[in-house]
Amino acid sequence: MSEYSVTFQPQNKTARVKKGTTLLEATQKAQITINNICGGDGICGRCKMIVKKGRVYGEVSSKLTREEIQQGFVLACQTFIKNDLVIEIPEETWAKEKIIADEDAERFRDFEQVLLYKKEYIPSPLIAKIYLELEKPSLSNNNADQQRVCDTVRKKLKYRSTQMGLKIIKSLPKILREHDYRITATVGLRRDIAEIMNIEGGNTEDKNYMIVVDMGTTTIVAHLVDANSMRTIDAKACFNSQGIYGREVTGRMIAAERKGTAELQQLLIDDINRLIGGLAKDNKVNLKYITAIVCAGNTAMGHFLLGLPTQNIRRSPYIPTSVAPPPLRAAEVGIEINPRGLLYSLPGISGWVGSDITAGILATGINEKEELSMLIDIGTNGEIVIGNKEWLVSCSASAGPALEVINEECGMRAEKGAIEKVYVENREIKYKTIGDLPPRGICGSGIIDLVSVLLNEKLIDRSGKFIIPKERNSDRIQYFDGIRGFIIADSQQSQTRKPVFITEADIESVITAKAAIFAAMSILIGRLELDFLDIKHFYIAGAFGNYINIENSINIGLIPDLPRDRIEFVGNASIKGAKIVAFYKQAFYKVEKIRERTTYYDLMGANDYVEEFKKAMFLPHTDIEMFRRK
Amino acid sequence: MSEYSVTFQPQNKTARVKKGTTLLEATQKAQITINNICGGDGICGRCKMIVKKGRVYGEVSSKLTREEIQQGFVLACQTFIKNDLVIEIPEETWAKEKIIADEDAERFRDFEQVLLYKKEYIPSPLIAKIYLELEKPSLSNNNADQQRVCDTVRKKLKYRSTQMGLKIIKSLPKILREHDYRITATVGLRRDIAEIMNIEGGNTEDKNYMIVVDMGTTTIVAHLVDANSMRTIDAKACFNSQGIYGREVTGRMIAAERKGTAELQQLLIDDINRLIGGLAKDNKVNLKYITAIVCAGNTAMGHFLLGLPTQNIRRSPYIPTSVAPPPLRAAEVGIEINPRGLLYSLPGISGWVGSDITAGILATGINEKEELSMLIDIGTNGEIVIGNKEWLVSCSASAGPALEVINEECGMRAEKGAIEKVYVENREIKYKTIGDLPPRGICGSGIIDLVSVLLNEKLIDRSGKFIIPKERNSDRIQYFDGIRGFIIADSQQSQTRKPVFITEADIESVITAKAAIFAAMSILIGRLELDFLDIKHFYIAGAFGNYINIENSINIGLIPDLPRDRIEFVGNASIKGAKIVAFYKQAFYKVEKIRERTTYYDLMGANDYVEEFKKAMFLPHTDIEMFRRK
Repeated sequence: MSEYSVTFQPQNKTARVKKGTTLLEATQKAQITINNICGGDGICGRCKMIVKKGRVYGEVSSKLTREEIQQGFVLACQTFIKNDLVIEIPEETWAKEKIIADEDAERFRDFEQVLLYKKEYIPSPLIAKIYLELEKPSLSNNNADQQRVCDTVRKKLKYRSTQMGLKIIKSLPKILREHDYRITATVGLRRDIAEIMNIEGGNTEDKNYMIVVDMGTTTIVAHLVDANSMRTIDAKACFNSQGIYGREVTGRMIAAERKGTAELQQLLIDDINRLIGGLAKDNKVNLKYITAIVCAGNTAMGHFLLGLPTQNIRRSPYIPTSVAPPPLRAAEVGIEINPRGLLYSLPGISGWVGSDITAGILATGINEKEELSMLIDIGTNGEIVIGNKEWLVSCSASAGPALEVINEECGMRAEKGAIEKVYVENREIKYKTIGDLPPRGICGSGIIDLVSVLLNEKLIDRSGKFIIPKERNSDRIQYFDGIRGFIIADSQQSQTRKPVFITEADIESVITAKAAIFAAMSILIGRLELDFLDIKHFYIAGAFGNYINIENSINIGLIPDLPRDRIEFVGNASIKGAKIVAFYKQAFYKVEKIRERTTYYDLMGANDYVEEFKKAMFLPHTDIEMFRRK
Repeated sequence: MSEYSVTFQPQNKTARVKKGTTLLEATQKAQITINNICGGDGICGRCKMIVKKGRVYGEVSSKLTREEIQQGFVLACQTFIKNDLVIEIPEETWAKEKIIADEDAERFRDFEQVLLYKKEYIPSPLIAKIYLELEKPSLSNNNADQQRVCDTVRKKLKYRSTQMGLKIIKSLPKILREHDYRITATVGLRRDIAEIMNIEGGNTEDKNYMIVVDMGTTTIVAHLVDANSMRTIDAKACFNSQGIYGREVTGRMIAAERKGTAELQQLLIDDINRLIGGLAKDNKVNLKYITAIVCAGNTAMGHFLLGLPTQNIRRSPYIPTSVAPPPLRAAEVGIEINPRGLLYSLPGISGWVGSDITAGILATGINEKEELSMLIDIGTNGEIVIGNKEWLVSCSASAGPALEVINEECGMRAEKGAIEKVYVENREIKYKTIGDLPPRGICGSGIIDLVSVLLNEKLIDRSGKFIIPKERNSDRIQYFDGIRGFIIADSQQSQTRKPVFITEADIESVITAKAAIFAAMSILIGRLELDFLDIKHFYIAGAFGNYINIENSINIGLIPDLPRDRIEFVGNASIKGAKIVAFYKQAFYKVEKIRERTTYYDLMGANDYVEEFKKAMFLPHTDIEMFRRK
């Protein structure tokens, strides 16, 4: 089939694509990141472009005005390529060029130089480098080359068994003799066996680095760590390029079924490779000295990483292909570190409770405490674990996107210009944006604040409906497409010259989302015949968690009203847990035990879920007494 | 570089080769087997060919007569290609086309349908197939596909740990659901871990075959075995095509250094693949149901199989690259069985004591007996083990080729027309040939008989010198190039119209060879402060061993004069041992223990070797009392 070239302005980047490709797919091929929230469903209207030259086809979108259509505006996701094109991407659409790391994503990189978590573990990185001065062969010491190396490594590192690939075995005679039997062995843990995966001449023990990755649905964070000093050297983050196929993993899984998992896999691998490349370059670390990559993330992301089929994750009974894939050669999936370097995927629990959670359990130590803990990761999909050293139960609540991106018009991810905080000062509802720029929209933490503030200011009632105010703020409540809404920033203040607002429908989405999460927590507590107050440690994980306001979250009933000293933000527990695994062999085995020990409770099988959900559909809850403990 | 075509008549086969290639190499490329003993050194004169068309270059050989040179005769190994050629291969040179198995080699195939060796081992083939009816997933049983399969296999087969490759993991969702969770798993042992290497829909448990190979320097034997019934279905053998680079492994190791190990490896792999292909076809077994190949052989052959560097094996202190390579994917070296099938190389002991010996120890059970045993494998390189359940010591004696191929003129391998037995009947020295055809030469078993008969008939003295007889046989002793020799078959009887004879120089070579082996045995016995009579079991292994005459072997002092009931031919102990490993997981671990337990004693480090060797340079020995026990 013939190919056409599509040139995007002002980036002046060209992609060669087949007829019938969408403009959105073409931007991806040209490595341009654009605004896109709905994942190509044509409903967010964010991916506007102007056809300057050439012909396209596709339905006319109601998201475009007549004027826009006359000027050549199209929605990139709904427009198909017919011949060679020149396309202009207006600034409102164009986010920025995809560079090594996204500046906005960087605030999620969660950089801590020293891993604060301290345990009884003995330092033992998954990949160890060991310098050996081997005894030289003689008639009375005529052990073969491979056995000479393997026996010595086994004794020194106290492994029960070692293995070595054919390629390395073949290289031994030369390397041993050229370097006078002084070599450095790179030894990686593959489940129960240690693999001698590389042999270098001389002493290169000091050069041993690993990459630790949290594969978030929205943001990918990569840390470069020194396996010897166990210090984090640098961290980078970028937005997940799979976003082109949807903000939520479900959309991406559907895309994977249509286009093949390989396409989704490639986007993720490219992101990770870019981050690794940037970390290596900035810190002057040769890729060949990066011997391992340790990854955690939700189960769908874990599947995309390896190219595993995802189609059964989104269909009852929600069965993943694997929750505990074996360590693999990183090169097998295209990750660019040492060609023989290993890729460790942390084990997850179920299709909807991923390895970010097992990592979180490990990082918080829930699994070793006498006292009861709860860990939640708030997102489109809320993941919850409750337990102690005796038992662990997890579940997942489908909250929908409202807690992160409230609606197509005003919701946005936590990029510059997003309203991230809403508060009352001098009886005025005020806001703060990321980067202190004029607002472009509102992100998750801002949404929670806003609903809480509207409730406190009695602008909405406990069911989320607007109460018409008599005085202050009355002009800020207006109708949007026939639905009442509240204007946070008007068109004068806004960067886009359009007001930033929240409607009654949006507030209902927020209530639905928080109710889904709270109902899930309630069901777990109920099943175990506990009370929320039995929870001694309440951990909020996730990049998002770092930025939410606890009082406001309790105020709207997103999280239970516990004594404040029991509530702790643990940040990116996923990357913290993955790093513990990377540094401590015992943790590698422990996280597998956590997986085996953690029961997954599927809420689809809970007949009281609807009832609990309905009870949580108020601000903060039908049972208001639960939220009067402050 | 430009290529030329070389067409061989009467086979009418053409090879395309580069300028400077030898004709010998071209025959190999055209897959034609020709007579060749010296391995291309230009000294045996067996590879005569006639250049019919085109130009060649190279030195004129003294092995050719002036008449032959005028007729266009050349030695293939000494003649280089200059342009397109037509070559005639005379019948004396042309052995036969390389077919699946060599008819002559077939007598070494060592076929026994049932493995006679019985042990306390529990039947457990290295590759097991197991049919599973998995529990179907539900909300309350939502284990992932991989874990569902792995957990079940682990429980059923009682493995501590299982692994699964990415490709198989990816295939699981489809295969499980298409076959209603009824599948057959193929589970292979990889050192300490069980690998689920294949998943098929439905029940294919009954189709599980393995190939067991003895990689001899001269002959390659392959058995097709049924892993379920533990029966041998069929066996085939062929001559080792590496013979083109020399009869002995040393010549081949030199060739590997010059041409790269890959070339030698390819010849071996091609031979093995041809045998497998033939076995599969004749027995209507689909290659995909052959799940493993288990190989034993001397250390050099083991290296060639995997393409490992051999250059240090032939140089002091004789260090191999590996004596215990890991199980590998058979496809990794090009062996054509199931694409995911495994290749097991049995572990050997040193550069000159290979896995054929560890397999022999396992097959004879030396390692488990209270009593003392000795095992020898007579060949160009004699391998010797002595020991019991407490200890095992091995050594290797370089005997040279004289016990197998006496000289370039009359020596030949055990093919049709070879004199295999020499005996006295009615006071006449008579012979028997393989296939009862007119003689073409004499093979190893015939040489031992002949020297023994000459000694008994007092035609030679104890130092191997001819005694001029007064009456009978006097006409059979003649001078060959100024050296006295004995004619076994005259030019009238011979197929080649040239006499088959043995000279004093040849007899000296035989004495040297047997002295090397006997001296090695003596050194071991001496070091351990034992007497030969302490040996309660004397095992003679190797295809060659099957055909030698014990009385004659003792008579010339090749083997010690023990009570005859202690001497046992064990045939191809290499393939027997490999088969035990194939069928019994415990034997797989045991043979590794044998490797670790067996000391290698290098005779190069023995300062009394020369003395012992000199003492054995008589027929049967200087100490004649040692051989008067009959």
